[in-house]
Amino acid sequence: MSQYWSDIVHKLTPYVPGEQPKLDNLVKLNTNENPYGPSPKVIDALKQEVADTLRLYPDPNSEALKAAIAHTHQLKSSQVFVGNGSDEVLAHVFQALLKHDLPLLFPDISYSFYPVYCRLYAIDYKTIDLASDFTINIADYDHPNGGIIFPNPNAPTGIPLPLQKIEQLLKNNTQSVVVIDEAYVDFGTQSAVSLINTYPNLLVTHTLSKARSLAGLRVGYALGSQDLIEALTRVKDSFNSYPIDRLASAGAIAAMQDDAYFNKTCEMVIATRTKLIADLESLGFEVLPSGANFIFAKHSTKEGAAITEALRARNIIVRHFKAPSRVSPYLRITVGTDAQSLLLMKALAEILS
Amino acid sequence: MSQYWSDIVHKLTPYVPGEQPKLDNLVKLNTNENPYGPSPKVIDALKQEVADTLRLYPDPNSEALKAAIAHTHQLKSSQVFVGNGSDEVLAHVFQALLKHDLPLLFPDISYSFYPVYCRLYAIDYKTIDLASDFTINIADYDHPNGGIIFPNPNAPTGIPLPLQKIEQLLKNNTQSVVVIDEAYVDFGTQSAVSLINTYPNLLVTHTLSKARSLAGLRVGYALGSQDLIEALTRVKDSFNSYPIDRLASAGAIAAMQDDAYFNKTCEMVIATRTKLIADLESLGFEVLPSGANFIFAKHSTKEGAAITEALRARNIIVRHFKAPSRVSPYLRITVGTDAQSLLLMKALAEILS
Repeated sequence: MSQYWSDIVHKLTPYVPGEQPKLDNLVKLNTNENPYGPSPKVIDALKQEVADTLRLYPDPNSEALKAAIAHTHQLKSSQVFVGNGSDEVLAHVFQALLKHDLPLLFPDISYSFYPVYCRLYAIDYKTIDLASDFTINIADYDHPNGGIIFPNPNAPTGIPLPLQKIEQLLKNNTQSVVVIDEAYVDFGTQSAVSLINTYPNLLVTHTLSKARSLAGLRVGYALGSQDLIEALTRVKDSFNSYPIDRLASAGAIAAMQDDAYFNKTCEMVIATRTKLIADLESLGFEVLPSGANFIFAKHSTKEGAAITEALRARNIIVRHFKAPSRVSPYLRITVGTDAQSLLLMKALAEILS
Repeated sequence: MSQYWSDIVHKLTPYVPGEQPKLDNLVKLNTNENPYGPSPKVIDALKQEVADTLRLYPDPNSEALKAAIAHTHQLKSSQVFVGNGSDEVLAHVFQALLKHDLPLLFPDISYSFYPVYCRLYAIDYKTIDLASDFTINIADYDHPNGGIIFPNPNAPTGIPLPLQKIEQLLKNNTQSVVVIDEAYVDFGTQSAVSLINTYPNLLVTHTLSKARSLAGLRVGYALGSQDLIEALTRVKDSFNSYPIDRLASAGAIAAMQDDAYFNKTCEMVIATRTKLIADLESLGFEVLPSGANFIFAKHSTKEGAAITEALRARNIIVRHFKAPSRVSPYLRITVGTDAQSLLLMKALAEILS
């Protein structure tokens, strides 16, 4: 609190990311990172870019990176916006496309950064309750709004919404922007990117932090009509000319170009998830259907907070959302390697015995 | 223009950075990059950080980087804020500390991003004319305001303001934040960092893009009282949890720790500047006093625009500000190597003969 702060600062409740503990030998299943490192081609590209040329600014428009992303998704470069992680992309989306007289709509249980952005930009919003089975009911969004946003699969539930439901929403909602936040889409959820050329108000956001194994490099992007991308570019060029550094650009391009590695590692994560869900169910957990690289599970008798604490004592970190709500009995567990699943299951068996 | 854009987007006039042309064999003297590459210790640190660990998020609080910066400036880590280039730092500064009922003050001739930020955050501002010799007159800022910001040395003039003038300004102006943007301070201008522990409303911003030779890595920072830093942190944590990627952090730490290389390359740039100014004066240029790694110069007879064009035809790029104003006769020329100065002088001798 200070006379020097702008008014808005007093009203903020910043987002709290999952912790990044500095302990060694941790089984870290709390921030949905990929258990497999980036493609060897990414490592090579980065090593090549570590050079004297770091004295020079990067391309402010990230044209080469946009071209690589456009190629992957069979779109034009002018339909691509890139940013310093999908969190920065989302921040610009909120300011550029989601601030209107009517309230923005998003689910009551969703990515907890959304209300934080709303406070930062003084955006009016209204949350829509998920159904009792934690699914998104499209019909609930059928009233006047200044925009709609939700993750697909949703976070932290992991539940995917079928593409036909998203298309139905877009047919009903033509007067405002619909943002589908596909951070986790590559782990078995249908992407809405195929609808972009049909619906000019559809924006889809992606990150390289999950399926592309580059959380440490901070690159995310948005895909949509040129009209929506132009709004984002105008805000970005009024905020920071060069958000993507030379190394981030080189690494991200190599990652987008290595589909074989991407497909292989996604399949490995999905296979581990299938086995992990079965194992957890056999221990008395109820696990929500997951199209993500994490699962959301609650135990039939033991509290989420207590299990989280007992796991931590065994050097295993999962995420638990403390605020009392429908989700507080649940744990959000990142899908790691099979070896990590074994350690987790061994610890849970002890804790629950 | 679109029904989908937020109102603010229609009102933006984005900043236009100096171009980053993709031609080879260019003498690039237009964006004030360092002619010397980063320290060899930076290259080593970056190569070490290119690894499987890029799958993991960076530290959201960049503690190790803040500690290295604090050590350099003999401050506490809690007096340091880091961002994705000093442009991002400045964006957060405008939103967190410079939006008040009274207008923000800055010079009429200054960093042209300042009015862009004001439009992005709907900040009321008033420009104060530089004196006829292009210096900042502190007395002109002595009336009620919501904040004061200017670069020191000023851009694009390069003229330094002595430390005692800045202290006088701080003594007169205790009710709002004073931001000294020291992007170019290391090339012979006195820094105001020594005043931070005395004046709680002083914020100083720095970049690693100039004297630390890392424009390609995007790291900047702000130094000030804990109270001011907390406002910036609250905005940052409502915008993007992880703006500094793992590589940027590792490279920036190594750069902050190699004072010997930093001092040596700054001295080389200053020596080249001294010679370049004398050479330009002998060709009929008037050169403003420079405490930066660029000089601002006009020719006695030939127009700035015409010289810029003729240099470009010879593969030499300098910056010219087109909008008609007091500065349109001037060229802003980055100080490069002695070899680049020779090429520049040879071309200018031809053009002016």
